[in-house]
Amino acid sequence: MSVPYKNSAKKIINDPNDCADELFEGLVFAYDGKASRVGKRSIVMNDLRPDAPALLIGGGAGHEPIYHGLVGKGMADGAAVGEIFAAPPPDIVLEAAQAVSRGKGVLFLYGNYAGDVMNFDIGGELAVEEGIEVKTVIIADDVCSAPPSEKHKRRGVAGLVPVVKLAGAAAATVDTLDELARIAQKACDNTRTVGVSTKPGSIPATGEPTFELADDVIGLGMGIHGEKGVGLIPMCTANELAAKILDLLFADDLGLVAGDEIVFFVNSLGSTHMMELLILLRAARPILDAKGIKVHHTIVDSIVTCQEMAGVSFSITKLDAELKKLWDMPCESVGYTKL
Amino acid sequence: MSVPYKNSAKKIINDPNDCADELFEGLVFAYDGKASRVGKRSIVMNDLRPDAPALLIGGGAGHEPIYHGLVGKGMADGAAVGEIFAAPPPDIVLEAAQAVSRGKGVLFLYGNYAGDVMNFDIGGELAVEEGIEVKTVIIADDVCSAPPSEKHKRRGVAGLVPVVKLAGAAAATVDTLDELARIAQKACDNTRTVGVSTKPGSIPATGEPTFELADDVIGLGMGIHGEKGVGLIPMCTANELAAKILDLLFADDLGLVAGDEIVFFVNSLGSTHMMELLILLRAARPILDAKGIKVHHTIVDSIVTCQEMAGVSFSITKLDAELKKLWDMPCESVGYTKL
Repeated sequence: MSVPYKNSAKKIINDPNDCADELFEGLVFAYDGKASRVGKRSIVMNDLRPDAPALLIGGGAGHEPIYHGLVGKGMADGAAVGEIFAAPPPDIVLEAAQAVSRGKGVLFLYGNYAGDVMNFDIGGELAVEEGIEVKTVIIADDVCSAPPSEKHKRRGVAGLVPVVKLAGAAAATVDTLDELARIAQKACDNTRTVGVSTKPGSIPATGEPTFELADDVIGLGMGIHGEKGVGLIPMCTANELAAKILDLLFADDLGLVAGDEIVFFVNSLGSTHMMELLILLRAARPILDAKGIKVHHTIVDSIVTCQEMAGVSFSITKLDAELKKLWDMPCESVGYTKL
Repeated sequence: MSVPYKNSAKKIINDPNDCADELFEGLVFAYDGKASRVGKRSIVMNDLRPDAPALLIGGGAGHEPIYHGLVGKGMADGAAVGEIFAAPPPDIVLEAAQAVSRGKGVLFLYGNYAGDVMNFDIGGELAVEEGIEVKTVIIADDVCSAPPSEKHKRRGVAGLVPVVKLAGAAAATVDTLDELARIAQKACDNTRTVGVSTKPGSIPATGEPTFELADDVIGLGMGIHGEKGVGLIPMCTANELAAKILDLLFADDLGLVAGDEIVFFVNSLGSTHMMELLILLRAARPILDAKGIKVHHTIVDSIVTCQEMAGVSFSITKLDAELKKLWDMPCESVGYTKL
């Protein structure tokens, strides 16, 4: 059997309609027995700390290794997994919440997309009916998706990686859901991302591009599915682009001042290779240094992706003493591991 | 200034002739002070174990995060870095060897390409003149690049990741260069890779594709620069491809039998996204399970890459008791980290 559809992206898949289920089954193998499948399409750690509040993440498939690749020691306790580019339905949110719950409540932590908010809210109501306390923290780090005055409209993008890492460290240590939610919210409040796209993604079910982008322009501030950003700019050098992205980050309301310590995350949407991430990092660091911003930890990787899409983002998480301590804890997952 | 050349791959770079130097400078930042630049283009760990044999890796740039992203705790002590797709010249090999040497000799561990062999050999002779003992182990894991009877002709591909991890664990523990070389050689002897390509890479200096490949075929056994493999096969499903790759691995002389424990590494050349790696892993695991092969550890990642190139490989490293113990040690680097 050859691939039964116009596979213009030349994807190595089986039936394109089965991608979400099949990648999920593969992911369970990738966890080497440390996490297991629960119910329809949730993944949950096998060794959960007893009598502890739980951290549940989730979102659509097709952006691997997020979200479901961020389950693990010092990371999330479990993830609810949707179809390709679609939020997990409420019954999957419920099955995941029940599986991670240990009597101290469950924190839902996910990116700000209408479908996710709706389904996690309904799933949360179902969980409450089952006697599980639920709190929600929504990741909305995408600076270019709305002005500071309308932060509730901002999308969740690559900043979710440092946020989940910090919340995961909190979930491994705190005793109450309120504490876990407070720290996760602080991690969100201290995180900002600006991304760009150079090439569109593709939709696995059709092979069609997710949007159009001329060869000589960059989509500044574009979302990870190709959502509109602040506009198109001419294709430029890495040095110019790094400066533009940092300008947008510094113009936002994170209030970075000399002496601040940050986590600096340079992410690829997948089809931009690490060479370029490193050349961008080389351009960015002297700008940060000149402002007196101290990079406590750097991540250069492709963790928040979209099929075939090329582009990069810079995420900054400002660390206070509490967050820095949580950052320095080790963590392990398919998508991000730190000693 | 816009990018001063036909940037058909739409790379986010500066002057295309500066890519190797600039990505190297970015890489030094990515190490967060744990490794430093030495000389012209070498990177070396800051905290080296005293009176220990050294592990030096290296190769051309453009395949990030290898090789130079595999320096770190429990990984290599240093790396000599070449230009894009070109071996490090002998003077860089020498500067790196001098920097990692602590009086107990230096093991050169790198992939089997004519330029690398020549330059590491000359660099090694220069190091010997400086009083440094040198041994060499060459990684040649690419099953499809030559038959078992001509293993010395095989290329080094993605299997270098488990090999460097095992040799790095050995370098952190053994006391003699002979022991380090013995273990690195065993890791090589126990490692096999079969790769495929679905799309060509691009040459950063020209923007041109590295080779041609029709839309309806896969290059079976192709090297990571597009070197000839065993032939072209029609585009097929992930299930079919996983079976074909495993057939080639099992047909080689690793002598896998039921009960053997392995590290299983599913690598992307960069432009193939993790969704596909996970779907391939899902297809591969039942085949391994049916043969009684026990997967001790799985890696699903994009570590051995080539600009714009799409494709995947499976690497198998057979673990005996000694290698398993070394595998289970933690390691940390920009390209691969394990708790």
